[in-house]
Amino acid sequence: MSNLTKDGTIYLPTSPSIASYAAAVGKKEGEGPLANCFDYIAEDVTLGENSWEKSESKLQQYAFTNALSKGNFSESDIDFLFAGDLLNQCVASAYGSRDTSIPFFGLFGACSTMAESLSLASIFVDSGTAVNAAAVTSSHFCSAERQFRLPVNYGGQRTPTAQWTATAAGCAIVSPHGAPPYVKAVTVGKIKDMGVTDANNMGAAMATAAYDTISRHLANTEQSVDDFDLILTGDLGQVGSDILVELFQKDNVDISGKHNDCGLMLYDLKSQDVHAGGSGCGCSASVLCGHILPEIAKGNLKNVLFAATGALMSPTIVQQGESIPGISHAVHISAE
Amino acid sequence: MSNLTKDGTIYLPTSPSIASYAAAVGKKEGEGPLANCFDYIAEDVTLGENSWEKSESKLQQYAFTNALSKGNFSESDIDFLFAGDLLNQCVASAYGSRDTSIPFFGLFGACSTMAESLSLASIFVDSGTAVNAAAVTSSHFCSAERQFRLPVNYGGQRTPTAQWTATAAGCAIVSPHGAPPYVKAVTVGKIKDMGVTDANNMGAAMATAAYDTISRHLANTEQSVDDFDLILTGDLGQVGSDILVELFQKDNVDISGKHNDCGLMLYDLKSQDVHAGGSGCGCSASVLCGHILPEIAKGNLKNVLFAATGALMSPTIVQQGESIPGISHAVHISAE
Repeated sequence: MSNLTKDGTIYLPTSPSIASYAAAVGKKEGEGPLANCFDYIAEDVTLGENSWEKSESKLQQYAFTNALSKGNFSESDIDFLFAGDLLNQCVASAYGSRDTSIPFFGLFGACSTMAESLSLASIFVDSGTAVNAAAVTSSHFCSAERQFRLPVNYGGQRTPTAQWTATAAGCAIVSPHGAPPYVKAVTVGKIKDMGVTDANNMGAAMATAAYDTISRHLANTEQSVDDFDLILTGDLGQVGSDILVELFQKDNVDISGKHNDCGLMLYDLKSQDVHAGGSGCGCSASVLCGHILPEIAKGNLKNVLFAATGALMSPTIVQQGESIPGISHAVHISAE
Repeated sequence: MSNLTKDGTIYLPTSPSIASYAAAVGKKEGEGPLANCFDYIAEDVTLGENSWEKSESKLQQYAFTNALSKGNFSESDIDFLFAGDLLNQCVASAYGSRDTSIPFFGLFGACSTMAESLSLASIFVDSGTAVNAAAVTSSHFCSAERQFRLPVNYGGQRTPTAQWTATAAGCAIVSPHGAPPYVKAVTVGKIKDMGVTDANNMGAAMATAAYDTISRHLANTEQSVDDFDLILTGDLGQVGSDILVELFQKDNVDISGKHNDCGLMLYDLKSQDVHAGGSGCGCSASVLCGHILPEIAKGNLKNVLFAATGALMSPTIVQQGESIPGISHAVHISAE
């Protein structure tokens, strides 16, 4: 076996390098606390396109092409592309990548897609199946809100637990050799359903999945919270983050000093009116690729457990009264 | 390197076994020419559920649990589950698998999902990342037609090029050792867009993708059409199959004697009123897992190139006037 697998945790003995990464975001995200981190900030929400779906595809293209050029890669260097997004039939990824000629794996992990795609790219490079593999994902406030909740122009009041879907994309390119960050291990998520039926409370629906995956990662790798500088969830927001901390408290584990959430980092919650925080595939993707990976590369962070979280629901099935399953995939990213 | 990769083709030197497989289908599919092949045939289209989405999830569960029991596997034997479907946010897979506790990779490959999931499961087993991995997918006529085209109860006239979305699911479990069928190699699809804008002509939109993937597979592996008993596309139907044969004719390659299409095999096209043939993730999944894999296991087929095909479109983006990109993933399955 080239990798050692235990209850969903896959060790990557070659510790592949995340050789390049980039983030492209919308105007609002470019006005937030991480404004200086991004490779591209759109001037307006359309990106010059005549549909929101195409705007989102373009954002994903920008993240990908920036990651290519920052790493001195050409398109033909990339053996496989792992991509997905929130839109029906993942069209932001399909249309974002249709002008490439790269063998393509379409994924659906909802907002966990950055971790799912980065996991698969890392596994492929570690096992020698790929030399270089790219992971890319995106979300767009307008395309997502129209699809999932209310028509944007309806102007309905958002609930306090609601999160703001990020207009953002991120791309990471994994290679066998290179500078840090390195991927040490991944833990693949299991589907967890705690009976949440409120599509405006995604954080609560996903917190149990994050708890399960982080707990399994620590148990399977015989590590503790102390082995990490940062345990970074995807987009639990304020509500889900509080639940996550409580779930660990029941195990007598205090993660509060080590935990942060991309949904709490991308925006200034008070001044930017995003209620419980950011969400969307692009939220964790842009925070990871724009902010966290550079911090690891600089050595400011040594070990990060990146546990992106996704709510695996559709409006149809929520309207039918079904509860919302969550999933979380975790990637241990290290400076060493 | 544990695998050798060339332009999307991945050799699997250990030739993992498809150790178990099962297919579950709807009533209409159970009245077609392959009726005797299926492990489960539903008595009606609801499967006793109160929504079509849940009916589809149940069909996927039946395929999975039948594959488990036929192979004497328990759920805990499966290291990873690769699953996807056509529904918005792939809910048939998420809700179909939420009662399991298996690490889960969500995929979106439209109707190519059986080949995408089987490829990833085989790569994971070949590289030692998994011992046993399962690939599962489904489609359901009612959930798909409501979502993609017309409300079913509208009763609109279907065009001659239209295909019938199969109510069907298939599951394959890949293991390192065992009896045939064996997976020898896979070729990962590239996104191909030939400018087709008619959502009732999926076959034409996907034929070029199938041509690209099959051609690449033959070139990369230095094989010819003669090396295969069967080149089996997913759901090109009659229109797409004719285009595929013509595309190869331009290369002076005659595949007509070796080619068949799951969409042409699942139904009796004339008596079952399915117009250009079957489609949907479950079409190629049920034909592969119900009919083709048993034929390979018996030695009646020696080498099959299974090239499932998907149209990566959403109703939203087609209504916006965009053309429909296609993708095809190919898996070489052998009796030896």
